[in-house]
Amino acid sequence: MTIAYKLYYWPLPFRGAFVQLLLEHAGAEYQIASSEETLAFKDSSAKTQGIPAMAPPFLKDCINGTFIAQMPAIMMYLSERLGYLPSGPYKRALVLKTLLDCNDVLSDLTNANGSKMWEHEQWISFRTDRLKKWMRIFEATGERNGLRRDAGFLLNPDQENCADIAITALFGTMCRCLPQLHTDFKVTAPKISALVVRIESDPIVRDFIERQEAEHGQLYCGGQIEQSIRDMLAQDEALSSKH
Amino acid sequence: MTIAYKLYYWPLPFRGAFVQLLLEHAGAEYQIASSEETLAFKDSSAKTQGIPAMAPPFLKDCINGTFIAQMPAIMMYLSERLGYLPSGPYKRALVLKTLLDCNDVLSDLTNANGSKMWEHEQWISFRTDRLKKWMRIFEATGERNGLRRDAGFLLNPDQENCADIAITALFGTMCRCLPQLHTDFKVTAPKISALVVRIESDPIVRDFIERQEAEHGQLYCGGQIEQSIRDMLAQDEALSSKH
Repeated sequence: MTIAYKLYYWPLPFRGAFVQLLLEHAGAEYQIASSEETLAFKDSSAKTQGIPAMAPPFLKDCINGTFIAQMPAIMMYLSERLGYLPSGPYKRALVLKTLLDCNDVLSDLTNANGSKMWEHEQWISFRTDRLKKWMRIFEATGERNGLRRDAGFLLNPDQENCADIAITALFGTMCRCLPQLHTDFKVTAPKISALVVRIESDPIVRDFIERQEAEHGQLYCGGQIEQSIRDMLAQDEALSSKH
Repeated sequence: MTIAYKLYYWPLPFRGAFVQLLLEHAGAEYQIASSEETLAFKDSSAKTQGIPAMAPPFLKDCINGTFIAQMPAIMMYLSERLGYLPSGPYKRALVLKTLLDCNDVLSDLTNANGSKMWEHEQWISFRTDRLKKWMRIFEATGERNGLRRDAGFLLNPDQENCADIAITALFGTMCRCLPQLHTDFKVTAPKISALVVRIESDPIVRDFIERQEAEHGQLYCGGQIEQSIRDMLAQDEALSSKH
């Protein structure tokens, strides 16, 4: 089999899961670089990197010998190649806007990509206010485009595209790895939650999730910030069991 | 004149300058929403917003009556409308990657969009290491695509596109509002610096910058974080004058 793409990312889901889920969903042949290769790519000078870039994910298009970086740019590039973009500039802009929203949620959930650890008061405000505002943003977007609990997708009533893959990579992974947040999601964004269940019920996707679970367990974003998120969730549970 | 676009942003350059510079460069007819309108848009519920979205900039396409949010998505949308995208999916992905890099620099420079104030030790590490790595990423990107000090653009030797507008909005604005960083930029990324000078020498762009300066002076990103950046730059100057 020809390897069409090579993904450079750390051995954990987080941003890499977006690219991998799209490649899996599309049935593309791809390879994951080793951690050593990813680290070497990241730490090389801008002059010698496959593409001058700050941080993974990086993607190599092995057919063309080209590289791209930045998760939303990788997703838009792959979506164009693999047929996951709707037609028309406005719908495509909405797909990109959705990817950027997803990327912002990842950044917010990890307190600016792990730049500092969570404090509980600040976490509570994030969980009850800003995270729910994000969920309502996705829910309202779906509603405007005909999404129902039993059918439809984020931007189109009858055809999934890159935006649906991104939402599944965001909320499906979040709820699998940090299951304490599952109820927040189901209650705040019931139609998006049902959409994620529909995408995840595809046998190809289910198989991919099972392999992720087997390989990484509930590992999410890694590092100290993952421990900080888990500490916050444990404190939330301790608080609510007191009441 | 028909107003084709309406931009919702705070009365300061930062992310809004990207959209405005593109609209100005293209000679598009546009209007800036008042601060009250922008605040009302941002604070409305997801269900009632023009587009469900977290934060400005927002753009209204007045001809189509549609809205878009997220600076890089606005830029890609407008670039498609206004003829600022190169042809071919790979070059378009590189434009988007450049926009995302620019957006990350804005976030990094403001310590994760102002989520916390700078401490000087951390600032020094940012200014001497990560900010320069960003500058080298743009410089190396230009070099690979034929950029020279006296000619060329970021991704094409002979035609400016959205990426060049974005780089000018990023580094041109940064060096105008925070002139202490100008030498860092010129020394670390001389070809990109020359590119910004070329774009800014266009009479339409020069006129726009003069109007920005008249309206906002050196105001950059606003808020406490702007004061924090200025404090850091003053501490850097005090340190270097001691040596």
